[in-house]
Amino acid sequence: MTAISAIILAAGQGSRMNSDLPKVLHEIGNAPLLVHAMTSAAALSPDRTVVVTGVGGDLVDAAAKAHDETALCVRQTEQLGTGHAVLAAKEAMDGAPGDAVVLYGDTPFIRAETLEAMQSAREHYDVVVLGFDVYDVSARYGRLVTHADELTEIVEFKDADAATRAITLCNSGVVMANAATLYLLLDAVGNNNASEEYYLTDIVGIARSKGLSATVVRCDEAETLGINTRAELARAEAAFQSRARDAAMEDGVTLVAPDTVFFSLDTYIGRDAVIEPNVIFGPGVTIESEARIRSFSHLEGCHVSRGSIVGPFARLRPGAELAENVRIGNFVEVKNAQVAEGAKINHLTYVGDADVGARTNIGAGTVTCNYDGVFKHRTVIGKDAFIGSNTLLVAPVTVGDNAMTATGTIVTRDVPASDLAIGRARQENKPGLAVRLFEKLKAAKAAKQKGAE
Amino acid sequence: MTAISAIILAAGQGSRMNSDLPKVLHEIGNAPLLVHAMTSAAALSPDRTVVVTGVGGDLVDAAAKAHDETALCVRQTEQLGTGHAVLAAKEAMDGAPGDAVVLYGDTPFIRAETLEAMQSAREHYDVVVLGFDVYDVSARYGRLVTHADELTEIVEFKDADAATRAITLCNSGVVMANAATLYLLLDAVGNNNASEEYYLTDIVGIARSKGLSATVVRCDEAETLGINTRAELARAEAAFQSRARDAAMEDGVTLVAPDTVFFSLDTYIGRDAVIEPNVIFGPGVTIESEARIRSFSHLEGCHVSRGSIVGPFARLRPGAELAENVRIGNFVEVKNAQVAEGAKINHLTYVGDADVGARTNIGAGTVTCNYDGVFKHRTVIGKDAFIGSNTLLVAPVTVGDNAMTATGTIVTRDVPASDLAIGRARQENKPGLAVRLFEKLKAAKAAKQKGAE
Amino acid sequence: MTAISAIILAAGQGSRMNSDLPKVLHEIGNAPLLVHAMTSAAALSPDRTVVVTGVGGDLVDAAAKAHDETALCVRQTEQLGTGHAVLAAKEAMDGAPGDAVVLYGDTPFIRAETLEAMQSAREHYDVVVLGFDVYDVSARYGRLVTHADELTEIVEFKDADAATRAITLCNSGVVMANAATLYLLLDAVGNNNASEEYYLTDIVGIARSKGLSATVVRCDEAETLGINTRAELARAEAAFQSRARDAAMEDGVTLVAPDTVFFSLDTYIGRDAVIEPNVIFGPGVTIESEARIRSFSHLEGCHVSRGSIVGPFARLRPGAELAENVRIGNFVEVKNAQVAEGAKINHLTYVGDADVGARTNIGAGTVTCNYDGVFKHRTVIGKDAFIGSNTLLVAPVTVGDNAMTATGTIVTRDVPASDLAIGRARQENKPGLAVRLFEKLKAAKAAKQKGAE
Repeated sequence: MTAISAIILAAGQGSRMNSDLPKVLHEIGNAPLLVHAMTSAAALSPDRTVVVTGVGGDLVDAAAKAHDETALCVRQTEQLGTGHAVLAAKEAMDGAPGDAVVLYGDTPFIRAETLEAMQSAREHYDVVVLGFDVYDVSARYGRLVTHADELTEIVEFKDADAATRAITLCNSGVVMANAATLYLLLDAVGNNNASEEYYLTDIVGIARSKGLSATVVRCDEAETLGINTRAELARAEAAFQSRARDAAMEDGVTLVAPDTVFFSLDTYIGRDAVIEPNVIFGPGVTIESEARIRSFSHLEGCHVSRGSIVGPFARLRPGAELAENVRIGNFVEVKNAQVAEGAKINHLTYVGDADVGARTNIGAGTVTCNYDGVFKHRTVIGKDAFIGSNTLLVAPVTVGDNAMTATGTIVTRDVPASDLAIGRARQENKPGLAVRLFEKLKAAKAAKQKGAE
Repeated sequence: MTAISAIILAAGQGSRMNSDLPKVLHEIGNAPLLVHAMTSAAALSPDRTVVVTGVGGDLVDAAAKAHDETALCVRQTEQLGTGHAVLAAKEAMDGAPGDAVVLYGDTPFIRAETLEAMQSAREHYDVVVLGFDVYDVSARYGRLVTHADELTEIVEFKDADAATRAITLCNSGVVMANAATLYLLLDAVGNNNASEEYYLTDIVGIARSKGLSATVVRCDEAETLGINTRAELARAEAAFQSRARDAAMEDGVTLVAPDTVFFSLDTYIGRDAVIEPNVIFGPGVTIESEARIRSFSHLEGCHVSRGSIVGPFARLRPGAELAENVRIGNFVEVKNAQVAEGAKINHLTYVGDADVGARTNIGAGTVTCNYDGVFKHRTVIGKDAFIGSNTLLVAPVTVGDNAMTATGTIVTRDVPASDLAIGRARQENKPGLAVRLFEKLKAAKAAKQKGAE
Repeated sequence: MTAISAIILAAGQGSRMNSDLPKVLHEIGNAPLLVHAMTSAAALSPDRTVVVTGVGGDLVDAAAKAHDETALCVRQTEQLGTGHAVLAAKEAMDGAPGDAVVLYGDTPFIRAETLEAMQSAREHYDVVVLGFDVYDVSARYGRLVTHADELTEIVEFKDADAATRAITLCNSGVVMANAATLYLLLDAVGNNNASEEYYLTDIVGIARSKGLSATVVRCDEAETLGINTRAELARAEAAFQSRARDAAMEDGVTLVAPDTVFFSLDTYIGRDAVIEPNVIFGPGVTIESEARIRSFSHLEGCHVSRGSIVGPFARLRPGAELAENVRIGNFVEVKNAQVAEGAKINHLTYVGDADVGARTNIGAGTVTCNYDGVFKHRTVIGKDAFIGSNTLLVAPVTVGDNAMTATGTIVTRDVPASDLAIGRARQENKPGLAVRLFEKLKAAKAAKQKGAE
């Protein structure tokens, strides 16, 4: 296969988003639009990826690098059209051999199969443009004029006559060509138009005039969906979620109420896992087969192994790693913690920066006190241990295998294996004092009410 | 602009609601239908608002007064038709000068622009009726017969011939006229019909017969939606939510999954705030720009400032006031509390009736013990303090700036600035006791099981 | 009424589910598909119910018995068609007198009225087949050929000519006949077809050839919906939920956002109860009139009495029984507990295996420590008691009427009525120690950072 580079245009302001955030950093499936576009490009294993940034460029550069540290970011200081933007990438392209594909940072849904089809078409044509058919011929996209398989012309909607507007094949803006050819053609593009911009699409006409060939690869309109407003963003998110839900069900996952489950771009769920209504998967979640995620659970950056049951009302934060048959119950937060096979953390507990051993039971109200105001410390609990309710584990601290802590113990020193740690004030019952206190309070209340009159 | 009074008819039983609650007290966006109607009327800045109540009148009066203490409530003891209901308001109108508009307590969606259009029409016509076009000509609404801009007749559906039923312009029942004229016309309305009721709509024919003019102002059918069943209530709620979500996105708010976010009538959210899926805004919530409300959060009567992050699984109750860059985490409840800039309350905590100083960190499991069974007391925590996990703050109590409480301390006395408060039983490790206890329990279990055989 | 037996075919593999779980054990409304089918059958009060199981038979048998211990389960070891499956039930039918109806374990929505209509039709016809009309004539169902009210033939789609395919009346597979007749007819069914299977539907032709009569009872297509994929399962769940929501609203329940409330097959909610958005009803929930279930609540196996308010963020687990006017607040879990009239459990509490007396107030952070690692023990709290915040009740233990526990007390011995139980370490304030600790930590951090350079 010919080597290929990806040029991703991500410089636009997106003023219709009504936002200070650059448009391509708005998210779908908890990943910036730009990352979706980079993920599309990655399907071609490009030798280099150049991201052209402009508005909010530092933020966009950072997001690009965070996703792929090899990405090259170039700044387009003025926004003078798509052709101008691709030219801004010229130096970073540095005469790269092979092909170049131009993608858009606000067009997140181009499929791998579509780009591969463009690669195949490149074997026979010099320039390959991605097109799509519209049902609504009043749609204001540029029209692709074809003759047999040849793309002969791209006509902007505003310049099109009635017959041309009746063409349903429209221009997505995605283009693939030999990189050197691309820049040769771009050198000939002018800005003699109403907007005084340099249009990438003009290369088709120029290519044809130079005796080069062009063709169209078709995709679904949904793939080329660009995002310009928050309402469009919400619809794109809904489309992403719908596809993710369908794919999960196809893979043998039970989604009791698919519309109420939210996926991230990288969520993975195994076969015969059951996801109850109202579950959120943030970035970085993997769920093994036959796990069950109960309602009102929120997971990010975590792993849930086979047979484990999570929730309802559970929160797994980054670094939570549950082994098989673990049980995480309600109002429980687990962060940066290894929870071994068969352990149970059933109620109202915070386990952070910790190891919990196999079959260990953590009582309600337990807190790993991992933060001293400056540093985070680790709590290590062995296997077959029993942590009594409301135990406070002041990290760094270790509780051994088969050890036990009594209800309400503040554990500040290590508990050796098999030992019981206990520390509590003795309960005293003060006869009749409750009633006397109630009476005193009620009298105070009555006096207060009287005073208020 | 001519002075105007609003007469809101809110006396109906709403038997199809299958409810003991008066129909107009059922809620949309956490506000009674009646309040929506009063809010519509308020757009005209009426000199007086008269609410005609009947079924469940005391409850309805109370709701009207709670929303607007200047509202006048009059009781219609028998329900003898809309004309009769408006007559019940006559004494309360007390010869008010200027116009009167008749609205309905179960019709929550009339827009300000619509009522203003009626006011403009009143400059040229004596009686102005609000109409709407239906697509379904079998709809059983009264039909508005017009000649050019003149409204010539209102014909009830059941009295209409085929040609009249083919008219798509229907009667909403909303009427505007000079108040004195309105009552003059109503005096002429009879109850010589099948239901033996006095119909407000009869005033149009009477007006015409007296040489007065009438016209129609059109609105969308959705505006005049009346609510008669719980299913209609649910649909109206959905319509309200849909509009609120669209408006928020238009204003530059990111709603990741708009369908899962629920607004109240008075919710305000600033630009570039991000609202994750599954968030509930109860009454009285304001969110500043660039705040983030994470999934599964529930907010009522609270304020969230710029840069603050709330949730997931956070509950802000009335009087929670978060300054900038505050962090409220999971399973945290905040009520009637000022939380200053940069403070963090990250896990499993109840903060009620409290002040939390800037940059102070509250550990997991902390409780402000604000209630002694009769009175509520206040907890005051200074800035840059560190409240150790599971600290119990027995109010009234003050913790000074830069102070610290040790894990598990029960704070019953004030903690001076810079001091560390500590109070805990010493941990003892009882060698081997855990294993002996487990063995004893297991032996007891075995004995019990044997006994059961 | 003639005696009747139900034969439920539940042997299929359901390979398109992509699951290790037998198809009929996938759930709708938290009940296996099989239980829905058994519930349909139960509307006829059958003398016996025979469930024919095959793939995953032991699991399916167990589910059938769990729902109805009188159900007879028979194993169809090879899947040779529906006729073969009914024959597998012959021995278990044991010559039962009266009629038999054949239903399907993966067809959960047949209504009682529909089966009753089949019974009525049986008074005049020997064989009654359940049919439904399709709008889409390309649907690949068998077609029912009729002459007046007589069913003359069932033609499989693949064997049908164009004229027969144009028939919109299709075969559901549900059949009712005299049981003895049914088996007589089945003995004549052969497997001379492409699949080499024995088709139950062949009995219609055989019956006609023997001079017996057959007819069709019609139902909605939605009733006969069979489930073959997880996407179909999700759609069936959605259909079930939609009907359950509509029925609740019809019964006078307010569902603020119906689409966000999830019912189980056996959920019961009384009139004028209010269910806020995002509530999950697991199996076995009854809610009385005028209760309110707030958002983000999860209920299973519990009872909520009139006037009680639950949530937001409440979890009621099996055995939670709330009397009237109880208040369960946020991040509260109640399990196997009687909560008497007017009691309040408002925040961050675990109440399990307990009795809570009337008007008793349970403070935030309270835990009933019911589990010692082997046994569960009970906590009994009297009426008008006040349980201070973060009280740890080490069961078995009893707190008397009008008693009080001080904040943070670990209650290991019974508290007599009217007494105050207290047990806490004394708070000490260490002057300036907080600041010295902070400085030490900051110095350590600075040293660490320097070391890292």
